[in-house]
Order: sequence, then structure tokens, then C-alpha cells
Amino acid sequence: MSAHLIFASSRIRRTPFHDKVVQAGVKAFSVYNHMLFPQIFVSLEEDYAHLKRAVQLWDVACQRQVEVVGPDALRLLQMTTPRDLSQMAEDQCFYVPMVDAKGGMLNDPVLIRLDQERYWLSIADSDMLYYCKGLASGFALDVEVFEPDVSPLAVQGPRAGQLIKRVFGAATAALRFFRHRLISFAGKEMLIARSGYSHQGGFEIYVDGAEHGAPLWDALIEAGRDLEVRAGSPNTIERIEAGLLSYGNDMTIADSPFEVGLGRYCDLDTAQACLGHAALVARRDPERQVRPVAIEGPAVPHLTHRWPLESGNGDAVGYVSSAAWSPDHQVNVAIGMVHRPHWDAGAELIVSTPAGRRRARVRERFWS
Amino acid sequence: MSAHLIFASSRIRRTPFHDKVVQAGVKAFSVYNHMLFPQIFVSLEEDYAHLKRAVQLWDVACQRQVEVVGPDALRLLQMTTPRDLSQMAEDQCFYVPMVDAKGGMLNDPVLIRLDQERYWLSIADSDMLYYCKGLASGFALDVEVFEPDVSPLAVQGPRAGQLIKRVFGAATAALRFFRHRLISFAGKEMLIARSGYSHQGGFEIYVDGAEHGAPLWDALIEAGRDLEVRAGSPNTIERIEAGLLSYGNDMTIADSPFEVGLGRYCDLDTAQACLGHAALVARRDPERQVRPVAIEGPAVPHLTHRWPLESGNGDAVGYVSSAAWSPDHQVNVAIGMVHRPHWDAGAELIVSTPAGRRRARVRERFWS
Repeated sequence: MSAHLIFASSRIRRTPFHDKVVQAGVKAFSVYNHMLFPQIFVSLEEDYAHLKRAVQLWDVACQRQVEVVGPDALRLLQMTTPRDLSQMAEDQCFYVPMVDAKGGMLNDPVLIRLDQERYWLSIADSDMLYYCKGLASGFALDVEVFEPDVSPLAVQGPRAGQLIKRVFGAATAALRFFRHRLISFAGKEMLIARSGYSHQGGFEIYVDGAEHGAPLWDALIEAGRDLEVRAGSPNTIERIEAGLLSYGNDMTIADSPFEVGLGRYCDLDTAQACLGHAALVARRDPERQVRPVAIEGPAVPHLTHRWPLESGNGDAVGYVSSAAWSPDHQVNVAIGMVHRPHWDAGAELIVSTPAGRRRARVRERFWS
Repeated sequence: MSAHLIFASSRIRRTPFHDKVVQAGVKAFSVYNHMLFPQIFVSLEEDYAHLKRAVQLWDVACQRQVEVVGPDALRLLQMTTPRDLSQMAEDQCFYVPMVDAKGGMLNDPVLIRLDQERYWLSIADSDMLYYCKGLASGFALDVEVFEPDVSPLAVQGPRAGQLIKRVFGAATAALRFFRHRLISFAGKEMLIARSGYSHQGGFEIYVDGAEHGAPLWDALIEAGRDLEVRAGSPNTIERIEAGLLSYGNDMTIADSPFEVGLGRYCDLDTAQACLGHAALVARRDPERQVRPVAIEGPAVPHLTHRWPLESGNGDAVGYVSSAAWSPDHQVNVAIGMVHRPHWDAGAELIVSTPAGRRRARVRERFWS
């Protein structure tokens, strides 16, 4: 955490849940897609323990939707990603790396199929609206592209299913992973998906109309009191343990999907309409790749910028992009970008943190 | 100002001047183009008074550059703006509204011509890189589009010319408004322009290479001690007084250039290659427009979201997007978007602030 205050302005948009997270005692925000993004309620460690034990409501309205609708919608979307979208079911969500013509990562949204000609991109922190608009104009596509008034509210944690069952019924609670359906709240139909940015599992409700945000928040809090429901947020410790990457932190436009471990989403045999296809074919055998890294010693400081990685003989071999002390694993869990000669499990590295140099070790897998 | 802390991460990038602004006692940041943007040093009012009296260094590295280079560079750029770029001189900067195919504002950067086939967009807070990449792919343009390692440092205030003269000589200090030239610092050539986001005037140095940021900062502080140079930032009070609009605050994609008072940059007779041309022709007689608004009574609270405007009979007639107490004018200065029947100078309105309803009046001109 930094000791610095946010200078608020209307440019950094409030979410429909803003008053609720303030009432819940939010202590720190990030800014994501030009919007306030709650990060800490009690403390990073307390929020983490509670997330793993109970159920939390997350204001993830900053996962803005880019709606792509029209006869050419699927054509436009397939241009942006090497993942083959042709077999996507009507009620399905796809995690999709999105790349430019050089195969550089632009975003890693969840793509939601609403119908054959209508999709939402639930985006990470970059203006995919602008890229899609540019493509739509340039290729003269028959689509509309815009940001609807839709704000995701995540319900995450081991008791998320119980809470959703109470409020929206057993059929909704039984949704399969990355499938969606419609629910009704206060007379308004909304989409709910089994998804979310935690390893604990849960749901994301795509609140359709800002005016429904606060009433839905209240209804879920009220229904879940005995489940210890409370406000939370994506948790840095928990997501590093699970190897959930963060766009802007663990990957940027400088990286290909292969470099950030998303090669399994690159269907190079079938997704040839992806504009980055030729570049990705050339980049499919990368010289560096994302790895789980354990950092020795006591808790590292809060990571505010990338920490350099060195080999034993002092060569620069990459960097750590995310790191935190894990109370459950009693080690500093981290995500590193590591050069090929040093990326095998067990490789010993040195990381330069603001608290000094530490020994670090590449792991075979993430922690959870 | 909000009482909330920023949760730092490498996604919210540090600038090359970060250590310098921390040493200078920065008290609050915004986030702009995925980067920390210093906002307050002593206080909003003290920073304002000092800016109008002396000279400040501003870390505006968050005005990222989008470099467009290649035989089709000018063709791409003209697609994005209704301002006619054909007569741009080699050493010129242009303020350019940029619009999508519907004429909605995407950004309002300063466009810098480096040579006939090479340009920088010094952007406001949205990913114009993505829009330009989409157009480049879609129209199969012969250009490269990328973000170079270039970070603007602004020197602003009535003594800016004196400081620049000392460090870079009389010819540089004599630059005309919105013209640029090359300077040399520590053996590195860099571009300097007579420009900047204040009414006080000054210069922007496009620091080419992050490693030059801190030494240049130190050199300017050292050379300007007797001029009372210190760290500052674009100041909300000062820029509202001068009617300098802020993308994301005072205009969004929902607005046309005509609605935000930028009609004088719409060369509809000649800039027909602008993709929004037809839409802008249709939108050239808007039903609402940006206006200077004076809000009566004591200092209004810090504006964190738009405040609704009503007419005397209670009709919704727009909103205030920026507001602050002006010590020099002893009134709350504000920027409003006002519907046509109420936009004439002298019109009396009611604004709903978090501190209650206030009388407000449309003015003929901004304050400075």
C-alpha cells in the first residue's frame, strides 16, 4: 500500500456500489478502466482469510463491458483473439487473450456470448472499446460497439453457492463453471455467470442498470448475515497463490500469450482470422515465460513496481511482477517473468526488493 | 480530495520523476493513462498561488505519447480528427479533438509533427494507442504505432521563460506558442515545445529516455532556486478559470466537439477524411454546450462526480463537471454542460452539490 491519497475527480468514475463500499469501510482503492476499484477493507491478510472461509461481495464494476452487436460481431471478435470462438455455446463464457497484429497482449477479458450476434467483453484494464471501434471502422464491419450501463458484482468464496441459492434458487446455484443464465431482480432480468477472479469460486452478476446496484448489494448482505457475508475484493495474495494473472501487472503489450502462459488458448490451427495469427506462429516458442516464484525470508514489502531477477552469476534474467506474503503457505508467493535458461522448477534466482536482495526459487506449479 | 488511499501496483506505472515528486512532498495522486499523476504538493490553493506567481515543474509523464510513423501516418491521423492537418508546419503542435465514426470525443491530445511521416499524440486519459492500432490493421495502413519511452516534463508559470533561458538559452525561451525545437541535455537530443496545461504559459520537455528524467529535474530545480521553482501540477482552480477542459471530466465519448466548445477545430469543409465527418455535419448544431458557470456561496466541496443542474422550475438542464473555489475571483468557478434554452450568459440555474443546493449563473466567458 502506498501512503498517498487519491485526488478524486469525475474522470475516475464511481461505481453503482460506491456508497455501499464506503459504508463497508473501504480503506484503499485502485483505479481500473477509469473507475474506482475497491481493494482493501480490513487488511490484505484479514480480507484474504475471510475470502477463503466465508463469502464476499466484490465491487468489480470496473470490469467494464464492451458490447459488440450485429451481423459481424463474431467476425470482429475472432480478429482480436487466437482462441477459436466458433464452438462457443449460447450460454458460455470464454477467457480470451486478445492481441494486436504483432501478437502483443491487449487485454485478457472474459467473453460472454449473449446470442449469435451479441457479445460482451468483460475487460481488464485497457480500452478495448477503442481497439474494437478502430477495427469496426477499418474493416467496415456491420456492428455496433459501445459500453453499456452494466456493472459486475462478484459473489466469491466457499459459501457463495449457499448465498446464491437463497437469493436466486437452486438452478442458478448449480450453474456450471463459465456458464451463464438469466436471473430476475426487482423485476429486471440480469445475467449471472459462474465465474470470478478467485480460486474460491463463485458468481458474477452483471447488474444491468446502475440503479439496481445498491438494492442488490443490500439484498445479498441481508440474506447472507449468518454466512458472514461482507464486502471484499480480488485479493492479491489469493490470486497469486492461484496463478491468476493481472493485465498491466503480469502482462502488457510487450508480451505474447505464450510468454504469459496462455498458449493453451492459442488455437493456431483454426483461429487463422486472428490478426495476430502470423505473429503468434513466429512467437510460439518464447525465450521467457511467466513462472511461480517463491521468495525466501520474511514478508516482502508491498510491490509497487517490478523487481529485477538475477541469476547466481549476476545476469539479468527477468522480473517479479506480483508478490505478497502468504499466511497460509508461510512464504512470499510471487509471479515472475523468467528467461528460458532459468525457468525450470527449482532454479535459484536473486530478486532485488526494496527491502534488499532475497533468494528466490522457481516452482513447478502455483500454490492452489 | 478523498480520504482514500491508493493501493499501489506495477499496473499503475511510476514515472521517471517519481522519486523527485515524492522527495518534493507530493500529497495526492490521480491515475492517468495507467500511470501515477501527481496532483497536490502543499495544498490546492497554495499550489495555485505559487503557479500564478513563480514557476513549477510538473510530472506530466502520464501524457503518454502515441508515435505514428510511416508513409500512411498522416492519413491515419486525419481519419481520427476533424481538424485539417494538411497545413501543419514541421515544427508545429496542434490541439486536436479526436472522434469516432459517430463524432463522439475519444481524446483531445496535442499532436506534434516530428517530420512528414512521424508524429506524436500527447494524449489525455484514454488508450488512443488502441484506436490507432485498430485503424492501422483495418485500413491496412503502412504505419507503425507504439508508445515510445518519452515522458513530458512541464515547466509552467510566469517565470518559466526565465528558467528555460538559463538552462537552454534564449532561442529556446523565445519559441512561439505551440512550436517546438530540439534541445540537448546530457548529450541527448530532446524535443521542447511552448505549451502546457495552464494559462500561465510555459514549456513541455519531451524527456526521451526514462534515465534522463531525474537529472533533468535536478538541473531545473538547481538553476531556478532564486526563481522559487518547485514541484507542482496542473491545478484544478487555475485550469477552470482559464476554461481548459479535461477529457473524462468535462467531455467523454458521449459528447461531440461542438458540444464541448471545440467547434472551431472542426474543419468540416476540408477534413472530409475524418471518419466522423458525416456524423459531425449532423451534430454541428448541438442542443447542449459547455459553459462557464459561477456558483454562489462559500467554497463548494471537492467535486468527485458530476453535480446536476436544474432550471428555476426544476427541469434537469445539464450538469457541472468541474468546480473549485477561486481565491483570486472569490467565487466558485465551474464548468457546466448546459441545455440550449439555459446556456445564454446570465441564465440562472440551481446546482445540487453534496453541500446542498446553490444558485449558479452562466457566464459569457471563463475567468482568465
